[in-house]
Parts: sequence; structure tokens; C-alpha cells
Amino acid sequence: MDKQAISALINSQKEQFALDQKFYTDANIYERDITEIFLKSWLYAGHISEIPNSGDWFLFELDGESVIIIRSKDDSIHALLNVCRHRGSKICLQQKGCDQILVCPYHAWGYGTDGNLLAAPHMGENFDKSAMGLKKIHLEILDGLIYINFAEQPSSFSPIQTAMSDCLEPYDLTNAKVAHRKSYLINGNWKLSVENYTECYHCAPSHPEYSRGHSLAKPNARSTDLMKEVLIKSTQCGLKNNFLDRYFQNAEGFGADYGYERYPMWRGHVTGSEDGQGVAPLMGSISGYDGGTTDFQIGPVCFALAYCDYIVIYRFTPISLTQSECDITWLVNGDAVEGKDYDLKRLIWLWDVTTIADKRIIESNALGVNSRFYEPGPLSTMEYFTWTFLSWYIEAIKPD
Amino acid sequence: MDKQAISALINSQKEQFALDQKFYTDANIYERDITEIFLKSWLYAGHISEIPNSGDWFLFELDGESVIIIRSKDDSIHALLNVCRHRGSKICLQQKGCDQILVCPYHAWGYGTDGNLLAAPHMGENFDKSAMGLKKIHLEILDGLIYINFAEQPSSFSPIQTAMSDCLEPYDLTNAKVAHRKSYLINGNWKLSVENYTECYHCAPSHPEYSRGHSLAKPNARSTDLMKEVLIKSTQCGLKNNFLDRYFQNAEGFGADYGYERYPMWRGHVTGSEDGQGVAPLMGSISGYDGGTTDFQIGPVCFALAYCDYIVIYRFTPISLTQSECDITWLVNGDAVEGKDYDLKRLIWLWDVTTIADKRIIESNALGVNSRFYEPGPLSTMEYFTWTFLSWYIEAIKPD
Amino acid sequence: MDKQAISALINSQKEQFALDQKFYTDANIYERDITEIFLKSWLYAGHISEIPNSGDWFLFELDGESVIIIRSKDDSIHALLNVCRHRGSKICLQQKGCDQILVCPYHAWGYGTDGNLLAAPHMGENFDKSAMGLKKIHLEILDGLIYINFAEQPSSFSPIQTAMSDCLEPYDLTNAKVAHRKSYLINGNWKLSVENYTECYHCAPSHPEYSRGHSLAKPNARSTDLMKEVLIKSTQCGLKNNFLDRYFQNAEGFGADYGYERYPMWRGHVTGSEDGQGVAPLMGSISGYDGGTTDFQIGPVCFALAYCDYIVIYRFTPISLTQSECDITWLVNGDAVEGKDYDLKRLIWLWDVTTIADKRIIESNALGVNSRFYEPGPLSTMEYFTWTFLSWYIEAIKPD
Repeated sequence: MDKQAISALINSQKEQFALDQKFYTDANIYERDITEIFLKSWLYAGHISEIPNSGDWFLFELDGESVIIIRSKDDSIHALLNVCRHRGSKICLQQKGCDQILVCPYHAWGYGTDGNLLAAPHMGENFDKSAMGLKKIHLEILDGLIYINFAEQPSSFSPIQTAMSDCLEPYDLTNAKVAHRKSYLINGNWKLSVENYTECYHCAPSHPEYSRGHSLAKPNARSTDLMKEVLIKSTQCGLKNNFLDRYFQNAEGFGADYGYERYPMWRGHVTGSEDGQGVAPLMGSISGYDGGTTDFQIGPVCFALAYCDYIVIYRFTPISLTQSECDITWLVNGDAVEGKDYDLKRLIWLWDVTTIADKRIIESNALGVNSRFYEPGPLSTMEYFTWTFLSWYIEAIKPD
Repeated sequence: MDKQAISALINSQKEQFALDQKFYTDANIYERDITEIFLKSWLYAGHISEIPNSGDWFLFELDGESVIIIRSKDDSIHALLNVCRHRGSKICLQQKGCDQILVCPYHAWGYGTDGNLLAAPHMGENFDKSAMGLKKIHLEILDGLIYINFAEQPSSFSPIQTAMSDCLEPYDLTNAKVAHRKSYLINGNWKLSVENYTECYHCAPSHPEYSRGHSLAKPNARSTDLMKEVLIKSTQCGLKNNFLDRYFQNAEGFGADYGYERYPMWRGHVTGSEDGQGVAPLMGSISGYDGGTTDFQIGPVCFALAYCDYIVIYRFTPISLTQSECDITWLVNGDAVEGKDYDLKRLIWLWDVTTIADKRIIESNALGVNSRFYEPGPLSTMEYFTWTFLSWYIEAIKPD
Repeated sequence: MDKQAISALINSQKEQFALDQKFYTDANIYERDITEIFLKSWLYAGHISEIPNSGDWFLFELDGESVIIIRSKDDSIHALLNVCRHRGSKICLQQKGCDQILVCPYHAWGYGTDGNLLAAPHMGENFDKSAMGLKKIHLEILDGLIYINFAEQPSSFSPIQTAMSDCLEPYDLTNAKVAHRKSYLINGNWKLSVENYTECYHCAPSHPEYSRGHSLAKPNARSTDLMKEVLIKSTQCGLKNNFLDRYFQNAEGFGADYGYERYPMWRGHVTGSEDGQGVAPLMGSISGYDGGTTDFQIGPVCFALAYCDYIVIYRFTPISLTQSECDITWLVNGDAVEGKDYDLKRLIWLWDVTTIADKRIIESNALGVNSRFYEPGPLSTMEYFTWTFLSWYIEAIKPD
């Protein structure tokens, strides 16, 4: 579709309805998804505990792009594009590693941990090494959470920093550790994955494991007596009751979304686990279970659930027009020891089983929206947040 | 190719020659194949004995489209598009099943066996369930054979019904049963598969198993003394000797093709089998083997061979531009019992071995027509029916 | 990209820089690569010893095209397009075989070893068999090396014949034999593969096995004392010291490139092997090891290394926009016997291990050049020959 056709399609989108098929199948729309959203937004890359030592790095990857997140000798962390400045070879080929010099596997150009080109033999007299460092993109750290942005001039990260540091302070994320990280390949356009995450209309029928503990599986969970109870207890446990909704069209800057809110779990459930009981030590300065849990969001495609004893961070990225990745990070208190303080299987059980179900659901959805007879239907009252996302999305990719 | 280029290509097609390469490789022509042929023609879906009870269903699939063929409580059979009216999820994910309510695996919208929407919670006050049933397409049953048509106003099925019921009456197909069904994936455009089926020029060199029993492997099989003999005997055995050729450009309505003709087998062969001898009880009211067999056709891509003791039904459908499916159904008399009245291996042997050979042949053909040096050659006198198909085909997809 | 965009891209290409991304990813440029280069150039097909007897044939394949290289009864060798003139089936399906008549597997049209149509039944009275032979392309033999050209009027092969026969005479290639042949599938555009072959900037870091024996891994290998030494000894051993560089823009005719030059190996190395020692009997009339080796090139994508005891011939061809094939032939003296005169494992060790490494390198390169952030970098002084290739390439595909 050309720009005019894309604009017309966007203008004809019905409010509070599912998207037209072309948003999921058109290659030009997909390219706009990448350039107008993913290359301009703050994206979760990982946690500082994954690269504790100088030279430690891991990759962030998205639709063929690859970024090296690396810790320098001076302890600063950089986001370097994983493309050699000579003939373009990918430099780091594994998912993670540790190198004081990043050596291109092709002609052995060597780059420092800050991206500067250190060695490039036989390049002639006029060659200026200082102009040929690895390209760097913006990187910010929020309480140990690493966010990157491909844009040359991204929206300011400061509002996120200010607002979210306050909310997350009790969790002491700077000293948290990654207990597990897992990637789920989903055969469906990335928006089908985000749509799935942003509504709990499907939770009751599809996620019995989740629904028996989490009140969001029912509508109006936030206006119950249970909610009032939790709000009182949470303060006693040292948790914050802020309500922040600066996401999507309400964001302070494009791609600089943030949100935070606390809501109750069902009685008898204190965390997201098979039996509703705690699976790890309380995080940070949290002094007890308040019977609630927190949803927070940073950037347009990174969502998290903060229980009193662990946090799961979801990130959705496109692999191609028809494939997306769901990357999940499980964070626990920094000094928790696997096998002693927590059992990894119990810790990850709920969100692993739920994501495996969602993968199946999203892939069935993808099959259906490809039909010539697919007709976008109306969204339910429980899909209001999906529409918040979708209505922002179509504006974001709208051609001038 | 745009419409003008497609028209020019069609106009330049030589009579009685193989098709130009672009008919097999151009994405826009392929899309016309789907919209102008497959979405407007009567297509064989299956046999009523496959869904004997209320709630029984199986899927018909074609180029990403999926249709649920389901039996209702009132014993009527419906063809429902397998796409949820909410956010488009595929509903039935297996190839067959039995459900009194079709529940979408995503948000649990529930549909009755007639497609009506029965349950959809949290949809607000103005939601009109009656407008949101599963889309239904046309379905007709001819002596137990289920045909469907995606068109809103398909050509009438009545002429087929009238003419073919008479011819097929001795087989009592309404009470027949499916002994076996098998799908063959062919890496080649669907037209290469239909071309292959519609001529017996390749039978002698490629199908020794078929050719030793079937006279069509030689030209002019229908004008022999053997033919006269069969015509006499067939009446004695209760079979019909009609000759019908209302197919392709001779059809009474677009996509409503039918044809029927009887021709001899070689002496010593009474059916299609390894040894030429019967492999199942005589069908319906047929009282003996007459030494002949019947070819019949219903719709443009469904062909059948009716022996005295069994029937094979071939259906060709596109999976994508470069892949097609050949689906074969083996029908036997309704009260025949596997293991007692027939041996499944013997029953399916001939057409399984022949189709496996054809798959190989068609795939080699596909490799060759992709060459820049492919030049369509002249058709032989034994490929007259292939040209009947091809000359109809190019008219059918011709842009206005 | 349309022709205008391709021309603009070519005009904007910086001298002595890597190519723009689009040269590796655009489908229209790729189609020009095929039509303007591969269908107009002399391409190495194989060696006459691979088809010693009448009816022996093997296939040459490239981007979906297939050519049968076959020896006739009169001992002449033909290059026949592997596409039946009837309905276009591929005829020879295996990689090699022996047939006095090539019979199409579909309808059994039979062709002679010279391509003439011999049998085609039921084609009617006006059918002219003589006009329906397999299409033939040009074929030339240089000292047993078979070259083919798809063009109707290819550049003359004579200059190659004259110049190269003289240089290669000591190797007696007419009587050589193929000890081994192996195909390497590379997930990268064919130009990435040729770029890799045409420079030794990467040899030192990436090919320790090669670099310990071959002086080209260092710059200026040809102006050393070692070089002078070799030039004296080579004459004594019966080898030629010609220097020919009629390749790429310096070729006498398009796609009729040739080049030849001798250069030293490091002391202690007399051939390309794990220990630097001979791995097969001396070839042809060569009377001893001179401590040097020869690079030669015939056509734009066929390069060879001629050691005193064996020759490896590299050929690079496109399989698709994103895949290429590297085909390697190992030639030894005609009367050398495997297991007695040479050990196959030792013989192929160096270039097998080196090509496996190059496959990995090229595939990493391909990943990087696909990035939106890839920016072509400057070539080193050791990549002058790659630029010779690239600057010829962009002119070759330039639209009028």
C-alpha cells in the first residue's frame, strides 16, 4: 500500500473495533511499524545484573537489527550497533559474551567497549579511525533496567525516570537479579501479540492458572472492597499506591510511555504462583504481602507485573511481518539464591504456562485474520486498553 | 502483472499449447485464480457419512480459507466460515471434531451448530448478537456428496442435481461410506495438478499400474468393440450409460460443471486394483461387473472414477501460488466392513501409487516451467481435455 | 527498484567502498545480475573426465535454471537446457547419469544425446519434430575444462583458449581427473561470496590453515625476494611465469575474463596442505616443486588455484537473491589412484576447512548488510581486486 492508501485505511478504521486485515499483512505498513514505532521508542533491553563485569555484553535484536549492550571499563553501559563499519559484517554472533575488544570475525577490525575503532590495518594514509567507531544509540538506565532508543533525538527519558523511580523504589531493582529469561517465538504479527497482552477479556476462558489468583480476569476489579483493603495494606508493607497512566496518546513524549497501578489478588493469593503462596524472598524493602500486585509499563511494548516477591517483564518485538517475539525476564531480590531461596520451576511456572497458551491463541488469531472473510468485530468493555493501544498505533504510523 | 498485462497475456495464448510461464508464477494471476474461480465454483467438501451425528464437523481448507462443515441438531448441514466475528481468531483448529457449541479459543464467544452467536459477554448494551453469527456459505448435497460455494449468488446447483442423481443412482451414494481419505501436498501451482489429471497422454509411460487395466491409457478408447460390449453389459448390471459433458465452457452455469461417461477396462480387469479383480462389495444396486468404469466430474476441480465396487473422488485446491493439494476420498458401499468385506490396503493401492507418481511428475513439471527458457509446447491429440480446461481457465480469469 | 533508481544507485556508489545494501537485497537488481551477468558470461560447468562415456551427463544449475552437460556418441559434448519442449517438465532429475536417449518423465518425449527430438507420439500430422529439440547453449572446452554460456551470441572464447592453454599446458588438464567435487550452500547473496574470494585481507585473521603456507595472506607478496626465487625455480620445473590480467573491465569480451599469475608460498610449503608437503603426484609434465603456486581465473565467477600436485576450481553461482552456491572441484593427475597415490582427506583438507570458515564469515556478513544501519565502509589496500570486481559489476548491470 502506498502512503495515500495507508492514510485512507487509517481514516476508515472504526472506533473500538479490531483492526483491518491489512494492518497485519501489508509489507509497507509493517515497514512503517518499524520506522515510526520501534526505531523511535524506548525499548527494554535487559537488566544491569546480566552484564556485571567490564566487557560483558548481550544482544538486543529486532527485525534483523542487532544491538550490543556492553559494560565498559569505566562501568558505563553502551548500546552499539552490531554492524562492522568496514564491510558490514555482524560482529557479535552469540547471544551474550565478554570481550575487552570487539573483533569483527571477517577482517579483524577491533572496537573498544565504547565502540571506538582501535585497529584496522592496511587502510591507507588518509583513513580516520576516529570517524569509524561502531554506531551508538541512546541508552538509559532506570533502577537497573536498561532501555534503548534507536532515534537520533529520542523523547526525553527523564519523566519516566522521575515518576517510575519513585514507584519502584521499594523493589530496589538496582540490586535485583535476573533469575530467568526466556524468548517465545510467536507466528503472528507483533500487534496481535500486544493486543493479547493488553486485555484480560480472554483470561477467564484461556488462562485458568492466572484467573484463579488475579482479579483482573473479571471486569471492574479496581472498584471493589478488595481493592480498598489492598490499598491500606500496601502502604503498611512499604509499597506505593500511585496511579500513573502516561502511556500511548497520554504519554509525555512519543515512545516514552509509563504507567503504574496496584490492584488486588483474590483472597488466599499473595503472588503469581501455582498455589498463590510466595515463591521467593520479598523484594527490596517490601515488608510483607499486601494481597495485591502491580502492573507497570515503560515504553509502548514493555509491560511488567510486580509481585511482592518477583517481577516479570514482558517485551514484544517484531521479527518479521508475520512473526513476533515475546521476551520475558524474571527478576528476584539481588541476594536470593536459586535452590535455597527460590525454586526456579515454581518461580516461572505461572507466566511460562500462560505465555505458552497465549502463543497458541495468538497464532490461531493470526490464521483467522488472514482470511478474505475476516471482518473486524467490536471490542468488549474489557478490551478498553487494547483500544488505547490500537488507537495510538494507527495515529503513530499515519503518513503525513 | 496488472489487469492490462494479464489481458494481453491471455490474448496471446496459443490454442492447443501449454500455458505461458506467468500463469504459474504471477501473484496477481494467482489472486484472480482464487477470486474468479475458487470463490465462485462448486467445490467438493466431503461426504455426509463423515459427520453422521449432530455436532460432527470437519474442515474444508483452501489458500488460507477455512470452512466448518457441520451437522446441526435438525440434521441439516451447514458451511460456516471458520473465523470468529469478534477479533477474527480461527475457531476450529483440528481437522475434525464434534461440538454442540463452537467456542472460540480466544475469548470464548460461543456459536451454535447453525452459526448463530449464542454467547458473548461484556459486549455492552447495544450489541446485537443476531448480526454476529458465523458467516455462512452455500452448501448443497448430491446423493450424500457435500458441495460448497463461497459466492454470494452461486450458479444454480439444480442442473447438476438433476442430471447426476440419475447417473449415480445405481451407486446409492447417499448410503455409501468413506473408507479412506488422504491428502497429497504437491509442490506446484494447482493448474499443473489439474492439467495432470485431465489427460492420459502420460498414463502409458508413467502409470504402468493404471495402464494395464484402463483403456484410456490408449487414444480412442471410447470407439472400440470393447466399448460396445461394455455398454450392453452395463445396462444388465443396472448401470447408466449416459454421456454428459456440461463442463468448462459447456457448463450450464459458471463453476457448475458436470460430466459423466462410461468406458471399458481391459479384458480381465473389472475394477481399479492391483490384480484387476474386485476389492469391495458391489455398490448400491449394481448387480455385477460389466468390465467398464465411469469417469464423472462435478464442479471444475473435482473428478471421480466410479468402479462397480468403489469410487474415488479427486479434488484439487491451491494452497499457495506454488503449492496445491490433491485430496482423495475412497467411497464403498455403506454396509461394507473393513477387514471383512474389503482390505483397505488393496482398496486404495491403485490410486495411492498413481497419485504418488503424479506428485513427482507434477513437481518436476513445476521445476521446468520456472525456467527462463521454458517455452510452451503444442498439446498432443490425447490432451484435448486439458485444453478444454485451459481454454476455459484463461477466459474465467480474464479481467473485464 | 526501477531502472532509473538502479542507475541512480550505481552513479552514487563511492569508489573503493563496499556496495550499498540494495545491491544485496533488491529483487530487480538480482534479476539484472542473472540476465546481465550470469546469462552472458562463460561459466565453468565441469571437467570432461566426469563424463567419459557416450551418454554420460551431469547437471549445471543456477537460480532455477538447469543444463544437461552430455557426451554424444560422436564424443562431442553438448549443453542442453533441461526443459522439455512439450509442457516444460524438467527431464533429468538426478545430479548425474548415463542415457543414450533422454526421456522426459512426464509424457516420454525422447531426445538424443545431441538434443534432437526422436520420439513424441500422438502429436498430429503437422508436428515438426526437427523444430522441437532441446534448446542448446554454447559450450567450449579448454584443456578438458568445460565452459558454457547461455547467451545467443556470447563473447568469443578464443582469446581465453589461446592464452590459457599456453599457461596451463604443464598441468595437462585434458588428461587430469576429478578427485572430488563438493557444493557449499551459502546463505548470502552471490556477490558477498565473490567479494570474499577476491581478497586476502581476511586470510590472516580468519584462515590460519591457509595463511601459514600462502604469502598472499600478507600484502605485497609478489614483490619479495621469495617471489624472485620462485620465478627462477618454476621455469626449471616446467611451469609458466606468464602474468595475465584480462579480467573484469580489462577483459577482451564481456564475461570472457581470464587471468594467470604465479606467486610464492612460505618456505617449507610446497603445496596447499595441512603440513605444507605434497598430497598427490606432480601434475602433467611438472618436474618438481618450485615453492610457488598459481592463481588463475576463467570467466567472472570461476577462480582456481593450481598447485604442482593438484588444482582446486571454485565456482560461485546464485541460487536466489539471498543464497549462493560455492562449487569446488579438486583435480589431480589423470593416472593418480586414490588410496595409493593420494589420500582424499589430505588432498581436500585445506580448501574444505577454508570454505567452511568462509561460509560462516559470508553468512555473518549477510546478516550485517541487511541492517538499516549498515553503511558501506572504505576498502583496504588489500581489497583492490574486490574493487576490480565490484566496479566491473556495477557497470555490467547498469541499465541503458
